[in-house]
Amino acid sequence: MGNFGVCYYPEHWDEERIETDISLMKDIGISYVRLAEFSWHKMEPIEGQYDFKWLNDVVDKFADAGISCIIGTPTAAPPAWLMNKHPEIFPVNDMGVRVTFNGRHHDCQSNKTYREYVKKIVTEMAKKFGHNKNVVGWQIDNEFGNGHGDLCYCDSCRQAFIEWLEEKYKTVDNLNKAWGCAFWSQEYNDFSEVFLPAHTAAGKNPSTELDFKRFCSDLIVDFSKAQIDIIRQYSENQFITHNCMGFADKVNYYDLASDLDFVCHDQYPGGFYLQMPHEDNAFLAQTLELMRSFKNKNFWIMEQQAGPTGWNIMGRTPAPGQLSLWTAQAIAHGADKITYFRWRTATFGTEQFWHGILPHSGKPGRRYDEIKYTINRYDELLDEIKDLESDAKVAIVYSYDNYHALNIQPHNPDLSYVGVLADYYRALYDLKIEADMVSEMADFSKYKLVIAPLQYILKQEVKEHFDEYVKNGGHMCFTYRSGVKDENNICVSDCELPGLLSEMTGIEINDYDCLRETEVTIDLGQYSGKGKLFADIITTKEAERVGVYTNNYYSGETAISINNYGKGLVYYIGCELDDNLLNKLIYSMLLQAKIEVKYKELDRGIEVVTRKGKDKTYIFFLNHNNYVAKLNKDLIEGIEVMIGEKNGLLEPFGTAVYVKEK
Amino acid sequence: MGNFGVCYYPEHWDEERIETDISLMKDIGISYVRLAEFSWHKMEPIEGQYDFKWLNDVVDKFADAGISCIIGTPTAAPPAWLMNKHPEIFPVNDMGVRVTFNGRHHDCQSNKTYREYVKKIVTEMAKKFGHNKNVVGWQIDNEFGNGHGDLCYCDSCRQAFIEWLEEKYKTVDNLNKAWGCAFWSQEYNDFSEVFLPAHTAAGKNPSTELDFKRFCSDLIVDFSKAQIDIIRQYSENQFITHNCMGFADKVNYYDLASDLDFVCHDQYPGGFYLQMPHEDNAFLAQTLELMRSFKNKNFWIMEQQAGPTGWNIMGRTPAPGQLSLWTAQAIAHGADKITYFRWRTATFGTEQFWHGILPHSGKPGRRYDEIKYTINRYDELLDEIKDLESDAKVAIVYSYDNYHALNIQPHNPDLSYVGVLADYYRALYDLKIEADMVSEMADFSKYKLVIAPLQYILKQEVKEHFDEYVKNGGHMCFTYRSGVKDENNICVSDCELPGLLSEMTGIEINDYDCLRETEVTIDLGQYSGKGKLFADIITTKEAERVGVYTNNYYSGETAISINNYGKGLVYYIGCELDDNLLNKLIYSMLLQAKIEVKYKELDRGIEVVTRKGKDKTYIFFLNHNNYVAKLNKDLIEGIEVMIGEKNGLLEPFGTAVYVKEK
Amino acid sequence: MGNFGVCYYPEHWDEERIETDISLMKDIGISYVRLAEFSWHKMEPIEGQYDFKWLNDVVDKFADAGISCIIGTPTAAPPAWLMNKHPEIFPVNDMGVRVTFNGRHHDCQSNKTYREYVKKIVTEMAKKFGHNKNVVGWQIDNEFGNGHGDLCYCDSCRQAFIEWLEEKYKTVDNLNKAWGCAFWSQEYNDFSEVFLPAHTAAGKNPSTELDFKRFCSDLIVDFSKAQIDIIRQYSENQFITHNCMGFADKVNYYDLASDLDFVCHDQYPGGFYLQMPHEDNAFLAQTLELMRSFKNKNFWIMEQQAGPTGWNIMGRTPAPGQLSLWTAQAIAHGADKITYFRWRTATFGTEQFWHGILPHSGKPGRRYDEIKYTINRYDELLDEIKDLESDAKVAIVYSYDNYHALNIQPHNPDLSYVGVLADYYRALYDLKIEADMVSEMADFSKYKLVIAPLQYILKQEVKEHFDEYVKNGGHMCFTYRSGVKDENNICVSDCELPGLLSEMTGIEINDYDCLRETEVTIDLGQYSGKGKLFADIITTKEAERVGVYTNNYYSGETAISINNYGKGLVYYIGCELDDNLLNKLIYSMLLQAKIEVKYKELDRGIEVVTRKGKDKTYIFFLNHNNYVAKLNKDLIEGIEVMIGEKNGLLEPFGTAVYVKEK
Repeated sequence: MGNFGVCYYPEHWDEERIETDISLMKDIGISYVRLAEFSWHKMEPIEGQYDFKWLNDVVDKFADAGISCIIGTPTAAPPAWLMNKHPEIFPVNDMGVRVTFNGRHHDCQSNKTYREYVKKIVTEMAKKFGHNKNVVGWQIDNEFGNGHGDLCYCDSCRQAFIEWLEEKYKTVDNLNKAWGCAFWSQEYNDFSEVFLPAHTAAGKNPSTELDFKRFCSDLIVDFSKAQIDIIRQYSENQFITHNCMGFADKVNYYDLASDLDFVCHDQYPGGFYLQMPHEDNAFLAQTLELMRSFKNKNFWIMEQQAGPTGWNIMGRTPAPGQLSLWTAQAIAHGADKITYFRWRTATFGTEQFWHGILPHSGKPGRRYDEIKYTINRYDELLDEIKDLESDAKVAIVYSYDNYHALNIQPHNPDLSYVGVLADYYRALYDLKIEADMVSEMADFSKYKLVIAPLQYILKQEVKEHFDEYVKNGGHMCFTYRSGVKDENNICVSDCELPGLLSEMTGIEINDYDCLRETEVTIDLGQYSGKGKLFADIITTKEAERVGVYTNNYYSGETAISINNYGKGLVYYIGCELDDNLLNKLIYSMLLQAKIEVKYKELDRGIEVVTRKGKDKTYIFFLNHNNYVAKLNKDLIEGIEVMIGEKNGLLEPFGTAVYVKEK
Repeated sequence: MGNFGVCYYPEHWDEERIETDISLMKDIGISYVRLAEFSWHKMEPIEGQYDFKWLNDVVDKFADAGISCIIGTPTAAPPAWLMNKHPEIFPVNDMGVRVTFNGRHHDCQSNKTYREYVKKIVTEMAKKFGHNKNVVGWQIDNEFGNGHGDLCYCDSCRQAFIEWLEEKYKTVDNLNKAWGCAFWSQEYNDFSEVFLPAHTAAGKNPSTELDFKRFCSDLIVDFSKAQIDIIRQYSENQFITHNCMGFADKVNYYDLASDLDFVCHDQYPGGFYLQMPHEDNAFLAQTLELMRSFKNKNFWIMEQQAGPTGWNIMGRTPAPGQLSLWTAQAIAHGADKITYFRWRTATFGTEQFWHGILPHSGKPGRRYDEIKYTINRYDELLDEIKDLESDAKVAIVYSYDNYHALNIQPHNPDLSYVGVLADYYRALYDLKIEADMVSEMADFSKYKLVIAPLQYILKQEVKEHFDEYVKNGGHMCFTYRSGVKDENNICVSDCELPGLLSEMTGIEINDYDCLRETEVTIDLGQYSGKGKLFADIITTKEAERVGVYTNNYYSGETAISINNYGKGLVYYIGCELDDNLLNKLIYSMLLQAKIEVKYKELDRGIEVVTRKGKDKTYIFFLNHNNYVAKLNKDLIEGIEVMIGEKNGLLEPFGTAVYVKEK
Repeated sequence: MGNFGVCYYPEHWDEERIETDISLMKDIGISYVRLAEFSWHKMEPIEGQYDFKWLNDVVDKFADAGISCIIGTPTAAPPAWLMNKHPEIFPVNDMGVRVTFNGRHHDCQSNKTYREYVKKIVTEMAKKFGHNKNVVGWQIDNEFGNGHGDLCYCDSCRQAFIEWLEEKYKTVDNLNKAWGCAFWSQEYNDFSEVFLPAHTAAGKNPSTELDFKRFCSDLIVDFSKAQIDIIRQYSENQFITHNCMGFADKVNYYDLASDLDFVCHDQYPGGFYLQMPHEDNAFLAQTLELMRSFKNKNFWIMEQQAGPTGWNIMGRTPAPGQLSLWTAQAIAHGADKITYFRWRTATFGTEQFWHGILPHSGKPGRRYDEIKYTINRYDELLDEIKDLESDAKVAIVYSYDNYHALNIQPHNPDLSYVGVLADYYRALYDLKIEADMVSEMADFSKYKLVIAPLQYILKQEVKEHFDEYVKNGGHMCFTYRSGVKDENNICVSDCELPGLLSEMTGIEINDYDCLRETEVTIDLGQYSGKGKLFADIITTKEAERVGVYTNNYYSGETAISINNYGKGLVYYIGCELDDNLLNKLIYSMLLQAKIEVKYKELDRGIEVVTRKGKDKTYIFFLNHNNYVAKLNKDLIEGIEVMIGEKNGLLEPFGTAVYVKEK
């Protein structure tokens, strides 16, 4: 099996069309397809009457052509006969509105009746295809969490949440304490009294909200696990995966991934409702890095953009070269296989304008040619670099608890957890420095610098993990709003801020200012600039001052500090810095950490990514500009071009891969 | 009966007031009134107990004064006793919220119980007034579709929709195929399984949505027909009509009109929640033209603005002269009679600030004087020009299917079907060229140029109708997003775009770009400018290139093409052009079509409208400016002033009518 | 008992902490605490099982320390056991959504079951603490009306509204007439047919809406009264109060206050979701003045801001000095006692970031020091000036009916009743002229000028009250949209506008223009400027013209008039003037009324407030600027500094109090 696949919906077209499609797929180098993840009705048209013949025929036809198959479980779109028989499966939003049929993801995953139906169809599928040699793997459901915020607020979910709480807290006194129910008379006498945090007259309990987010994630993980368990029972030599959605916050992907053989990601640089031509290049790279962190290993792209996106609203059309560039970017950041979405553009349904490789007419065109070129260019390389690691010396810490907690209480309406992480990643990206995304408890030993923004909720074990890393010589960078909360989303009160980080940072925060729509000015010595979102007014204890506020009543107070701790260094940045100032500060941190900043002077639009093997190191140069760019001689000295022009020229949206023996 | 009337609510005032009102009406030339369209409770205060005495007395008093009456059926406001007895009649929105009593249009028109009550009251009214000589006609309900989006999502509507689908598709397999239910497992085993396209977790089926819009329109047409059938049974020499609302999309007015003797329109240039002083002048004209198209004949104004509009929010106050100007505009575009809304401003209820001819105090003032002047000025002319046709050589095609389909999937959030039609009308209007609005299958033989923007859904018969027109020498102009869909709202896939128009246009569209918030630059040879919304990248086959893109990756590609087809010409405009560029292009089309562009140099604010009789042609000059304007001598050479100043001067908001023997 | 207190929640902290807290309170001069207003569950953890021991212990401990206690009834937060047993108590919004548990104010106050539970707990509390000598008073509930717009639209409220209407109107014919139910067939045959004015398909009856607002207010007043009656039965030497919220419109505070011994106010200059650092200084002052008007006597602050505000979103941090300044401002405007909210910042629950005097850590810091300084500075003065009156010669009229009616029908979306009142107050404030807020029927005899903007609804008795005041020599100022409506929210129709004010103003309004987003220009002779929102085109009868419109079709018409009436003067301002123009006009009115404008030249940020006793007059100078300001020698000649610097210097956010013998 090669390294490029495509999502295919034979049930959307006349039966005879598959011959043409297979022949065209072969022509461009497609070696596998994903099938059936939305075909419940076709597989079980009437309750209990299963029909897999059509799918088996399709799998056989692909087998004859040497194309492997991945099969999806169809649980993201239960059919009309089921929803009519059990309308209680439709989810309910926080205003009490029950959604209806006509889209997808209209299933409440806590509903026990629904679970029974899911069990039956997945069992039948697993029995039928678990031993089929041409079926190489399974996808569970589709984009969990797409479609409704926090799953649902129905009675079944209330019951499931209550059970989850009982399991977690054992006694209702524990619950009352953990959530601070003494506030506003919210104490419960019994778990059964707990209400879901739906629409209220005024205010909600942030601790309840955080646990509800965790519950919703656990529910999905459990829903997934139930399917995995069935499949594993009947399956042989088949992998099980799921197509994740980058920074989506509905499921804790670390948890979800633990049951999967590997994770997949759906990469749509063109976004969806974006005004811009496409997502920010740095954020695209960061998303791919995040995906690699979920199992701390390489991943697949299960849906790689193959044309303009669109439901009722369409995105911009990718310019010639961009589909290829974005494919190369995914490979560079650790995608072992690339599956394009979708083969041919649907003529009906919600996604009529979510374009596939082929247009509605089915005739090969510009996108077909570009993807053929891309597969040809990268298929062999992918065999060679599979499983290679990144060579990053910097890591950025990612945490669902902090993501949720700051969604619940953003402080400043403009403060977004992911936005702040993106600011730090972008500063590194612009310096052409690679960074891994890591979980809080990941092994930091390979990194010289670990950036952990917004450590708002901080557990003792995480603190100790950080502590050990720094004591052994690591450099860490923290920001405002760190050490504020315990894991129950309750403010620490036994010490001043930054709470558990006080010792490491060598500072104390006795005053702060939520900046709302205003800015502060900051002086960094050689540079000055602006800060926004939030300002911690730092009292340095053991730490030294790095930056100073120069306006407001705290003019002259410390904005940024640095502390020698053990053999390491700890930075604390009290404010969200403007791009330029952050860039300067990060640069000085890199120098301090003795990280080589080699490609800094390259054009802003050129991305540099390294994949390091035992013998060889591969360096990707990705030109996100719509003009020709050139790699200076001195930058490519000592490395050999493997893919791309010898003279260092990069076409608009062009790519090159260099290699050096290591 | 003269040509001017007024909407009158005797039940809102002390009984004796009617004498004063009649005398004032006579003074200004009012010859008919509209009555009773919101008076259900007054006519049936208790279930089954009818009281028409008050209304009969009113009709008699008007008869004595020589003033005719039009009576409205009161079905837009069922009374409290009925709504308390049958709260299931209250409509339900797509979020499941059932509306309540306190406004109007709180009736679900599919509800069978409600239909029974409607049948009874309309029957009683028809029996009572069907032979009354002073009752000249009937209005059915009031502004159908005002008040709730797509009627309603209640159980009764679901059942009615299911029946409508069964009638249309016969078998559920036909339905599944027509809607592309294979997408996301939406196949139905039985019609009874169909859900209404209400609020979903994610996405809707655009084919379902389009049929639901059609069903909602058909339901209203049926509701109207049921009343018409009753009235016709008991009525003698009385017309039946309805007051439509221009470009409102709730009812297909072509369908509704087919059961009516003529259509009426409610014309409120001051709009409602408008920030501007009033609607765009060109759009006002276009709305009137649209109204004329519904039965391809002249219409009435059933509500002509008589003062500032307002519910909780008020519009701007019309300046002296504007009420008169707007009346003249309506006449010029084909209104045979003008009914002002309303006689005296209501002191209570929702419409307290929707001002009538008389203020709250009931004392004649500025508006009274202006309307008196207006009636005096135009009453005779109206007798003379009744039934005269427009002399337009250009037509713009209007289609509810395309309106609905592009509302469902606008592609670009800024793309509005009516907005694009307005752009084309305005370009002609600014050149002082009149255009008729026409349906897709209208007789085009009188036109030299037919503009058909956004022929997104295109049926075979419509295509053939276009084809025949062009082959016989007609010129047609099409735009981007044409030939995309079949009548089921499914993308064509058996050929490239523009689908059924491929042959006529002589082009092929293999690539396009939804421009979102960006613009493209376009070169037209002599002129250059900008395009927005959407860009088709045109491959010319038989066609020739007229305009070229000059930026983006498709710089140098064709933006606008022209094709000789049969004896005619076909334009294709790949992008929404800026006002100036569109104006230039339309001008060249007019020249090409040998249409005289005579008044082009007149001040922008002066509108020119022609009504053509057997012997005479009437030319209206309408000065929308708040300053004095002058008609150049050469422009009015050979035509005689009939109404207005002899020297060609037009007062601010002034009007003139010239005449020439033909 | 001293003059400074704090809100305290012993149930949020470990039991032993109270000792430390008491000691710190004593240290800064706190002499009373407010307790228990959100502690229902702690007092009645299980239905019918009351536990007051913890609270009694707390009261005793405070007694030992010489600190008095105020106890709140906990009815703003019924506990989970109650809400599970009776979920019908949860309020329902106008879309039919029933709120749930997790915040506060989730109680429908018309619910009879709930009333029973309230009766029981309040009775038990009153019995327990009614004779406790250290309990000096009671607070009923908390911030009535906070949390849900118009209470609720549940079936119980519908029934209560129907009963309220029956009581008010006696016969359904009276109701139909009062509400103008003839409009849109809204007549009722029986009171039981009345629906609540919830979400409709289109439009509502403004008269119904106004009565519903009045009903909602009366319901709260009744809910409060029921508790007061119980407490008075068991209480001895204890006051009863409630913490109001300034300009909030949910309860008519005049009505609510009539049952209270005095009113309290919650003053949060930092606002809540404000972008600005804090509320406008003038508006803060006006809010305090409003509070003084509710019982026409001094009030308490029950919650005075003690740090940054915040729920999920945080406000800006008050700069050093601002907490002190805002305290002084409250005192200057008539607060007899100041209670800070809250003692220590909560670590859990919705208000984690609504900061108290102490931070989360409980360690005294900047805020503690500043409040200690403030108490020390003002405690004695408060003893001295208690009950002193303002010396204002100007009053601004405040009316809930007009507030509600203009919320229902704002005419211009930018028109806000409170906003217009604030414009007039600010014009005076900027001239350093104090103004009282007064109800329509207040005694005006002490004032030389009474400004009554937007007398939209005007009752005969109010008109007569105005009339008498002016005839006796008073000066009054009215604005556009006055005399428009009767008390049923129905437009007057027996005369031209300004209706009942026609004689006093000596003008007639026959035309007006709702300006929406446009402006008019106005010439005042010496000055010119702009007007917005609404323009009355004035016909002067007995009045003289003061200002003239200079654009639009009414250029040259009167915009502002003045009329000699009896011994007095009546101004009519036809338009909302820009700040500068209003300032000039108000200044000329002050001169005309012979009101001394002494401090006009002082820096804009300095507020001047006077409190007048029998022998002495106290003058507060409040520096809202963040820089040092100076009082010119001539301004402080003849007055002695009592608090503050002798040289007339005011620190940033600094205050000074001067005194003169009178």
